[in-house]
Amino acid sequence: MKFATYHDGSRDGQLWVVSRDLTRAMPATGIAPSLLSAIEDWDRVSQPLASLYGRLNAGEEPFATRFEPHRCLAPLPRAPQWLDASAFLNHGRLMDKAFDNPPNPEFETIPLIYQGASDDFRGPLADVEFPDDALFIDMEGEFGVILSDVPMGTTAEQATAHIRLLVQINDWSLRALGPREMRAGFGFLQTKPSTAFAPVAITPDELGAHWENGRVKLSLHVEINAREVGRARGDEMHFSFSELIAHCACTRRLTAGTIIGSGTVSNADRAAGSSCISEIRVIELLDQGAARTPFLTWGDRVWMEARMPDGFAPFGIIDQSVVRA
Amino acid sequence: MKFATYHDGSRDGQLWVVSRDLTRAMPATGIAPSLLSAIEDWDRVSQPLASLYGRLNAGEEPFATRFEPHRCLAPLPRAPQWLDASAFLNHGRLMDKAFDNPPNPEFETIPLIYQGASDDFRGPLADVEFPDDALFIDMEGEFGVILSDVPMGTTAEQATAHIRLLVQINDWSLRALGPREMRAGFGFLQTKPSTAFAPVAITPDELGAHWENGRVKLSLHVEINAREVGRARGDEMHFSFSELIAHCACTRRLTAGTIIGSGTVSNADRAAGSSCISEIRVIELLDQGAARTPFLTWGDRVWMEARMPDGFAPFGIIDQSVVRA
Repeated sequence: MKFATYHDGSRDGQLWVVSRDLTRAMPATGIAPSLLSAIEDWDRVSQPLASLYGRLNAGEEPFATRFEPHRCLAPLPRAPQWLDASAFLNHGRLMDKAFDNPPNPEFETIPLIYQGASDDFRGPLADVEFPDDALFIDMEGEFGVILSDVPMGTTAEQATAHIRLLVQINDWSLRALGPREMRAGFGFLQTKPSTAFAPVAITPDELGAHWENGRVKLSLHVEINAREVGRARGDEMHFSFSELIAHCACTRRLTAGTIIGSGTVSNADRAAGSSCISEIRVIELLDQGAARTPFLTWGDRVWMEARMPDGFAPFGIIDQSVVRA
Repeated sequence: MKFATYHDGSRDGQLWVVSRDLTRAMPATGIAPSLLSAIEDWDRVSQPLASLYGRLNAGEEPFATRFEPHRCLAPLPRAPQWLDASAFLNHGRLMDKAFDNPPNPEFETIPLIYQGASDDFRGPLADVEFPDDALFIDMEGEFGVILSDVPMGTTAEQATAHIRLLVQINDWSLRALGPREMRAGFGFLQTKPSTAFAPVAITPDELGAHWENGRVKLSLHVEINAREVGRARGDEMHFSFSELIAHCACTRRLTAGTIIGSGTVSNADRAAGSSCISEIRVIELLDQGAARTPFLTWGDRVWMEARMPDGFAPFGIIDQSVVRA
């Protein structure tokens, strides 16, 4: 199934079911008012939602309308929880090398995950406001999962069954503030403003064989001002989403609607480019002796699109401009 | 006004107005179904809630019932956001001294605040489950504020007007996991399981002169297994709640229902004791050469109560036992 959330003035938005090819949509408000309410009540509503989705795909919903991404908020405009990992170790290795970080003996065995703000997510086409472009404005292209209720102590094997939906994410970051917040040990706060999401959240079966071992095995195409800078694949995610869930649920339960992100999609092959500017700059520093690509400024435009092998973008498109607050 | 949230099977619970002396209560569900909905719609509901509160205090609500703390969840059983500071610098100074941390040049000018989990708070009398008592189970007695919507760039002067309610908090912590998570720079995740709250959230005017300059100027009495270990006062909070709000809203807006915590209430005077075991142990280490007070184990009971000068506890009482998950 595929879902989007249309703006209706409420904080959680209005749930719509979107056709497989992202051309048509129908409000699902008779079944569940919002995507969060559907996730919370999944056992009761998933069958009616699947029926609606089937009729929509079969052209049997005469009142279906054209799918309109410009009406979309993030699939969950706010979520009970947002936990963002750094599960593509190639990205971490590049950062550690460039900044000469001390070796982390648990680098390959314990995932790095921070607790992010989940009260105010951004939609796929929304301008993104920042207070100052001297703060090194950056993007991070990621995949993510939306969960059902997860009990404390859930293992990675058990965790897969709690993955309800997959999403595509742009984790906006202010790099100038990162070093101070990391050094202090309390994690990111000012460094991580509101995160943005592609318009469509999908059930894992929509990806067929491209959802495997708890990983989204698609390429993530990233453009800055219409120039492609990244086409990294999700296959190289070191920790699976199931392993990330188990780590997060180790000492507490996670409630339905919790979102876990993969961190910047990053591949060892330099030809894949990068999903964030910070990584582009670090590669320039390592390979050419100096970082040349600037961070973002007012008016810059970021485009992100995960593609199936045939070019279809199952999550829709993130296309955002950076604006002054 | 004083508010509590009764368990009714829903995730946000049922809003009740509680009398000034915490003896009587009335459901406010005709005005707002939950405390979160009231905070989100404050301009519309605050006057009807104040009228109900007035009638309750005047004995004019014949259907009022005895206030029952055992029916209470946290005032917000889940919140859009939970940001926890370390605003009592005496606590930080003790920790830095004991662990020989490198000097932080911004210690007195930039507050330390971490983004915590807000999806699953604990009620005041709920047993608290942990997976393992070898993880150094600890409490932290704190004060907190619940906010209205706060725009990005709000100053400390403007921030005070966004404080809707005051709360009393027990920030449960697993100290054995803290050093690794702080060293990695991504902040607390496994270290900070579900946070607990005293049953009653109050408007700042309920404290009269004891709410001053964005600080809760009350003593916080903390007992472990019926032995008092702390009676520290809120007066020594270095950063005011208004300053903490401004820090959090520097690069993003905060949505209504955001909770900001003070961090462990801590006083320079050793006679005030401590609001967490970690601080008790550090003082023992510094003064006596070795930490003697153990962390908590199964069956241990934690009691926390902020007191007015006449002994009245305006937030009610936190009384929790530690149990095995």
